[in-house]
Amino acid sequence: MIHFECDYEEGCAPAILERLAQTNMEQTVGYGLDPYSLQAKQLIADMCGLTSDKQGEPLWRERETAGIVHFLVGGTQTNTVVINYLLRPHQGVIAADSGHINVHETGAIEQTGHKVLALPTEDGRLTAAQVQDAILQHLYDPNIEHTIQPGMVYLSYPTETGIVYKKKELEALSAVCKQYRLPLYIDGARLGYGLYSPEADISLKELTSLCDIFYIGGTKQGALFGEALIICNPLYRKDFRYFIKQSGGMLAKGRLLGLQFLTLFTDDLYRHLSEHAIRQALRIRKALVEKGYPLYMDSYTNQQFTVLTDEQLERLKRQFLLSVIERTDAEHTAVRICTSWATKEENVTQLIEAL
Amino acid sequence: MIHFECDYEEGCAPAILERLAQTNMEQTVGYGLDPYSLQAKQLIADMCGLTSDKQGEPLWRERETAGIVHFLVGGTQTNTVVINYLLRPHQGVIAADSGHINVHETGAIEQTGHKVLALPTEDGRLTAAQVQDAILQHLYDPNIEHTIQPGMVYLSYPTETGIVYKKKELEALSAVCKQYRLPLYIDGARLGYGLYSPEADISLKELTSLCDIFYIGGTKQGALFGEALIICNPLYRKDFRYFIKQSGGMLAKGRLLGLQFLTLFTDDLYRHLSEHAIRQALRIRKALVEKGYPLYMDSYTNQQFTVLTDEQLERLKRQFLLSVIERTDAEHTAVRICTSWATKEENVTQLIEAL
Amino acid sequence: MIHFECDYEEGCAPAILERLAQTNMEQTVGYGLDPYSLQAKQLIADMCGLTSDKQGEPLWRERETAGIVHFLVGGTQTNTVVINYLLRPHQGVIAADSGHINVHETGAIEQTGHKVLALPTEDGRLTAAQVQDAILQHLYDPNIEHTIQPGMVYLSYPTETGIVYKKKELEALSAVCKQYRLPLYIDGARLGYGLYSPEADISLKELTSLCDIFYIGGTKQGALFGEALIICNPLYRKDFRYFIKQSGGMLAKGRLLGLQFLTLFTDDLYRHLSEHAIRQALRIRKALVEKGYPLYMDSYTNQQFTVLTDEQLERLKRQFLLSVIERTDAEHTAVRICTSWATKEENVTQLIEAL
Amino acid sequence: MIHFECDYEEGCAPAILERLAQTNMEQTVGYGLDPYSLQAKQLIADMCGLTSDKQGEPLWRERETAGIVHFLVGGTQTNTVVINYLLRPHQGVIAADSGHINVHETGAIEQTGHKVLALPTEDGRLTAAQVQDAILQHLYDPNIEHTIQPGMVYLSYPTETGIVYKKKELEALSAVCKQYRLPLYIDGARLGYGLYSPEADISLKELTSLCDIFYIGGTKQGALFGEALIICNPLYRKDFRYFIKQSGGMLAKGRLLGLQFLTLFTDDLYRHLSEHAIRQALRIRKALVEKGYPLYMDSYTNQQFTVLTDEQLERLKRQFLLSVIERTDAEHTAVRICTSWATKEENVTQLIEAL
Repeated sequence: MIHFECDYEEGCAPAILERLAQTNMEQTVGYGLDPYSLQAKQLIADMCGLTSDKQGEPLWRERETAGIVHFLVGGTQTNTVVINYLLRPHQGVIAADSGHINVHETGAIEQTGHKVLALPTEDGRLTAAQVQDAILQHLYDPNIEHTIQPGMVYLSYPTETGIVYKKKELEALSAVCKQYRLPLYIDGARLGYGLYSPEADISLKELTSLCDIFYIGGTKQGALFGEALIICNPLYRKDFRYFIKQSGGMLAKGRLLGLQFLTLFTDDLYRHLSEHAIRQALRIRKALVEKGYPLYMDSYTNQQFTVLTDEQLERLKRQFLLSVIERTDAEHTAVRICTSWATKEENVTQLIEAL
Repeated sequence: MIHFECDYEEGCAPAILERLAQTNMEQTVGYGLDPYSLQAKQLIADMCGLTSDKQGEPLWRERETAGIVHFLVGGTQTNTVVINYLLRPHQGVIAADSGHINVHETGAIEQTGHKVLALPTEDGRLTAAQVQDAILQHLYDPNIEHTIQPGMVYLSYPTETGIVYKKKELEALSAVCKQYRLPLYIDGARLGYGLYSPEADISLKELTSLCDIFYIGGTKQGALFGEALIICNPLYRKDFRYFIKQSGGMLAKGRLLGLQFLTLFTDDLYRHLSEHAIRQALRIRKALVEKGYPLYMDSYTNQQFTVLTDEQLERLKRQFLLSVIERTDAEHTAVRICTSWATKEENVTQLIEAL
Repeated sequence: MIHFECDYEEGCAPAILERLAQTNMEQTVGYGLDPYSLQAKQLIADMCGLTSDKQGEPLWRERETAGIVHFLVGGTQTNTVVINYLLRPHQGVIAADSGHINVHETGAIEQTGHKVLALPTEDGRLTAAQVQDAILQHLYDPNIEHTIQPGMVYLSYPTETGIVYKKKELEALSAVCKQYRLPLYIDGARLGYGLYSPEADISLKELTSLCDIFYIGGTKQGALFGEALIICNPLYRKDFRYFIKQSGGMLAKGRLLGLQFLTLFTDDLYRHLSEHAIRQALRIRKALVEKGYPLYMDSYTNQQFTVLTDEQLERLKRQFLLSVIERTDAEHTAVRICTSWATKEENVTQLIEAL
Repeated sequence: MIHFECDYEEGCAPAILERLAQTNMEQTVGYGLDPYSLQAKQLIADMCGLTSDKQGEPLWRERETAGIVHFLVGGTQTNTVVINYLLRPHQGVIAADSGHINVHETGAIEQTGHKVLALPTEDGRLTAAQVQDAILQHLYDPNIEHTIQPGMVYLSYPTETGIVYKKKELEALSAVCKQYRLPLYIDGARLGYGLYSPEADISLKELTSLCDIFYIGGTKQGALFGEALIICNPLYRKDFRYFIKQSGGMLAKGRLLGLQFLTLFTDDLYRHLSEHAIRQALRIRKALVEKGYPLYMDSYTNQQFTVLTDEQLERLKRQFLLSVIERTDAEHTAVRICTSWATKEENVTQLIEAL
C-alpha cells in the first residue's frame, strides 16, 4: 500500500538522524537553553530579518523568558499556546471556518476559554474585507459587551486547502489588523510547501514583516517533530516561555528541536525538501488535468484535491491510501492526495499510471 | 563541566536511535495507531498484567478512542491530561505540597480549572491518614459546597525527593482512595529509578493493581522523550484520546513513541538503564556518608541530596553542575546530585574524589 | 418615551415587593436553604410532576447538594452553570446559531472550555433531523477524536425569535437525544410567554418529561430577578450546588429567590402575567397584519417582529423604543417589539395608532 | 432561635424596599445603564475622590464598557471577575491562606485558570514583607517560568477574622505592589464594618488611593444583595463590562443595584448601619472579656471570636445560632458571633446574659 493521505507518514530527513546520533551523548542543559537551540534560534531570527532591539544584546533574551524564536513540539500545541497568549478572556480569534483550529483540534482553543469566530470562505482563504466586516459588526453592536470581542486573526499559509495567499491579499489583511490593533498570526504547518510553490510571490522576510507571529512547520516538512515559532512583534514576547511550560509544550531535552531546525536550515535543506514535495504534487496535478479529473481545489502546493467517481475511488484504494474529504453527491467523493519531502518519485509514477 | 544537575541532559539509549534509523523511511499511519505503537502498547499492557475485558478483543480498542495504554510526549502534559480527564469542575487533586504538579508546572493544573489540594509532608510522601483527614474535613464541612471536593489523589513514585513508598504505604493509600471512590494516579517520571532501587518492595504488576492510572517515564529513563500512560481501571478509558488531542499531546508521527518504548522494553533495556543510574547514585551516597556529608533526604534512587558548606559548594561548582534546592542557613546549601541511565562511571569517580 | 425594546424594563409584580416587605426582618439561614426557598422548590417540583425517589424523603436533599430545583440569579449564569455541569471537557453543546448562548453571552460557554456547535436555522428552531446529522457526522469522522464530541443539546422555548416548538417537534428532538445519550436542556427565559401562547400545545409536565433540565424564567416574567432550574433527570443532580457556588451564582440571601417564586406560583400569578403580555403582543401582531406590515418572524408570543421602512422607523423612534435586529436592505430594518407582564394597555394602543 | 452566625440573615434596610416600591413601574434601560445606576456610580466615584480623566466627560464612559464604578450581585462573583480580569494565564494571586478566595469559593479562581498563591498568616493579615518574599522567591527561581508568576495581591478589609489593617500596613503593602507592578485588590465585603471600627485609621479616600481596585459590600451591609466595585487605577478599566457579562454577573434590571446603593449612600445610611453593627459587636466583646472568655481573634468589627467549652457551647446552642470555626482541643470549640446592621439590641442583651 502506498500512502498519499498525509504528509507525516515517514520519519525525518536522514541528515537529522545523523546529527542526533553525533551529539547523542553530549550533556546540555534542558528546556531549549542549550547551545544548539540558541544557535538555531539565532539562525532563524537572522533568516527572518529580525534584529535585536538594543545594540549588542542577544536576540532572544531567553533567561527573561522572552525570546524571538521558540520551538514547540506540534501544531495544535503551538496554535493553542499562541492564541491563549494573545487573547484576553473576553476575546475570540477570527478564522476561516475550515481553519485547523476550528475543525481539527478537538476544541483546544475553546478549552483555553476562547471562541473561534469562524467566517465562511470559498477555498479556505480569508479576505481583508470580511475580516473588517466582522470587526465592524462587533464595534457597532448596541450591546457590544454581550458579544465576543475579536482579538486576533488566524490564517494558514498555505491554507488547509492548499492555496497560497497572494502578497497583495496578505498586505490587505495585515493592514486591517494593524488598523484595528489585532495581532495577525500565521499557521505555517506547511510553510515551505507554500513559500516555494510556483504560485507564491512572497519571501520569508516579507511574511515576517506582514504578521505578528507565525511558525515554520517542521513535522510535515522533514523533521521528526517540531515547529519553530517566530514572534515578529516585540509586543508579544514578554513571558512567552511561561505559556509554553504551562501548556506542557516545553520539551525537557529541548536540543532535539534545536538540532533538527539547525539541520533543516543548513545547506538549504528545508527548501530542497519542500521543492521536492511540490514537484511531485505538480506531476500529479498535471496528470489529473490531462486525464480530465476535476480539480476540487486549485492548489499548487503539496496537497492536490480532485473528485472521484465511486468506481475510480474503489480502484485506487486497492493500491493507494488517499484522504477522503467529503461525499460531493451520491456517486462522487472529493479526495486529497498529499505528497511530502519523502514521497518517492516512482510511487508518484505508479499513481499517475493508475489514474 | 560535568553535569549532575538532572537526568535529561543526554540524548537517548543508542539502540533507540538505531531503531529510528532502520524504520525511518517506512510509511505508517499517524497519531499512535501505527503497528509499532500498537505492538508497544500490547507489550506494556502484558507487562502490567492487564488483560482484555472481553475474550478475543484487542486490548486497546484505539478506534473507539479508549485504550489501556497511551503515549504522550512529556510529564507535565501527561499530568495535565490525566488530571483534567479524571476531575469534574468542582473537584481538586490531593497532592504533596512538594509534588511536581504543585510547584514545577506553571499552574498547568489550575489552567484546566482545578485546585491542587496540597498537603504538607516531611519528605515528599503522602500518608493514607492525612489523605483521609483531608477527605473527612471536606465531608464534614457545614458549607460543603463552598469548598473544593477532593476528586483524586496524585503521588510520585519515587517522590521528587528520591524516596520510594513502601508497598504497605501504597496499599494503605490505595485502600483510602477506594473507600472514598477517588482515583489514585501515580506519576512515574522516574519509575524505573524507583522500582529497581534496593529499597523498593513492589513489582510493576503490584503497582498496577494498587492504582487507577500511572505512567512509566521515558524522558528521564533513556528515551529521547515520551511517557507511557497505563489506565489500569477500565472506568477511566472512555474517550481518553480526545483529551490527548485537545491538549496538543497527540504526536503526528506517533510511531516515534511506539518505537522508543518497544526498544526500551526489549531485552530488559529499561531495567538495565535504571539499574545503572541507581548503582552510580549509590556510589555517591556511600561516599557522602563516609566523608561525613549530611544526607538531606534519605534516598536510594538516582537522586542524592546533601547539604554543602559555602566553601564546598564553591569548590564543586568549578567542575560539576549540581542542582540547588535551598539555602538551609546562612552558610549552607542543600543540593541535589542526579545520575541517569547515561552517567559515566568515571564522572562519578571524579565527583567522589572531589567531595 | 415608551419602551417596547425588551421585557425587563420595569421592576416586578407588586405582590413580590409586598412579600419581601412582610418578611424583611425575619432571620433565615442563607444560600437557598431557608424555609421559603424549600417551600418554593417543593411547589415547583410538584407542578412539574417530579416525585421523590424514595418514599418519605424530601425532594431536594439540599444538604447533600443534590436538589431537584435550584434558584439562580440570571439567564447567562444559569446557562453557563448547566452546560458546564453537563459537559465533559472534550464535549460541545449543539445549539441553533441564533441561540442566546452562541451570540449574546460574551462567550460564557467557551470561557468554561466548551465549544458551541452552532447549527443554521430558518427561524431559530432546531430540528431533530439536523441534530441527528450533526451527531452522525461526528460519529463517522475517521479522526473522530480530532473533533469536538457533541455532548448535549440546547434549545430555547420559545426561541429568541418568538417561536414555540410544537409538541411533536420536541418529542422528536427528545427521542434523538435519548437515542444518542445526550441530555436535552431547555432555556426557558420566557417560558410563560411560550407555554401560554395560543400556538403552544404542551403543558409544563409534558415539557418536564421531554427534557433533562430546563428553567422557568423569572427576570423577564415578573420577578425582580431569578430563574428556577428544574433537573428532571436524577442523573444530573449530584453535586449541583457546588457548581452554583463556584460560578458565583449562589445568592447569600437565597430566600429572595424563594419568596419571589413562591409569589409567582401563588394564585396562578405567573400564568396571568404571561397571558397579559401575550394578549398585548397579539394586539400588536393583529395591527401589523391589518396595516400591511410584513411579519419578520411568525410569532404568537410576547415578541413581535416586523420590517420597517426608514421613514416608518424614524417616525416610531420619536415615541417608542424598539429593538433593531438588522438592516434587511438599504431602506429597511427588521425590528423587535416586545411586551411583558408590565406592558400598559394604553401604551399598546398608542403604538397601534402610530403604526 | 436567635441568629448570630452570619451577617446576611435578614432582608435589607427598609428604605431600600421603599425606594424599590416607589420606582417599581418606571421603565428604564437594562444592564446598569439606567439613570439610577449612573447616578449611584457618580456618587460613589465622588465619595472616593475619583475625578474624570478629561474635563466635562462623564466619569464612567459606560458605552465604551470602561467605567470607574460597576455593580455586581455577590462577593464570589466580584472576586472572580476582578481576578480573572487582572491576571494573565500564567499568573496567580497572592492571598492569605485564610482568604475567602482560597477557602470558601469552591475554587472559583482556579476555575478561571489561576492559582491562589496562599501565604500563611497569624490572624488573616498579610504583611508587606511576606508579599515581597514571595515575589522575590519567584524572581530568583532558576527555572522561573516553571512556576506561577505572582500577578496581583488580594486582601480583605476587614479580614475574614475581623481584623482591620492599620494604615501603615496598607501603605507598606501598597508600596510593595507598586514596586513590583502588581495590582492590589481589596475585598470589602464588610467594608463599612471595618472603616467605622474604632480601630480603623483610614478613610474611604485614603483606601482608594492605596489600592487599584476594591469593592464596597452591600449584601452584608444592609442591601438585599449587590457589591459596588471601584476601579481606582485607570489602567484596569478598559473592557471591564465584557467580563461582567461573560461571568453571568450583569443583572438585566441593573437599576436594582443602582437604587440600593443610592439609598445606602443617602443621608449617611451606610455609615449608620455599619456603626450599629459595630456597637452591638463591641457590647458582646466587652461581655466576653468581663466574663473571662478568651478572645480567639482580637476583633473590633462586627465579627467576634471566642473559645467555648463543650458545656458552654451546648448551653448557648439552645437559644442562639453561632458559627463554629474549629475544634481547638478535645473540649473546646472556637466560634464566631456575628452582628449586622439588623441586629436587635435586645437580642444582644439576651446573648450577654446567657454567656
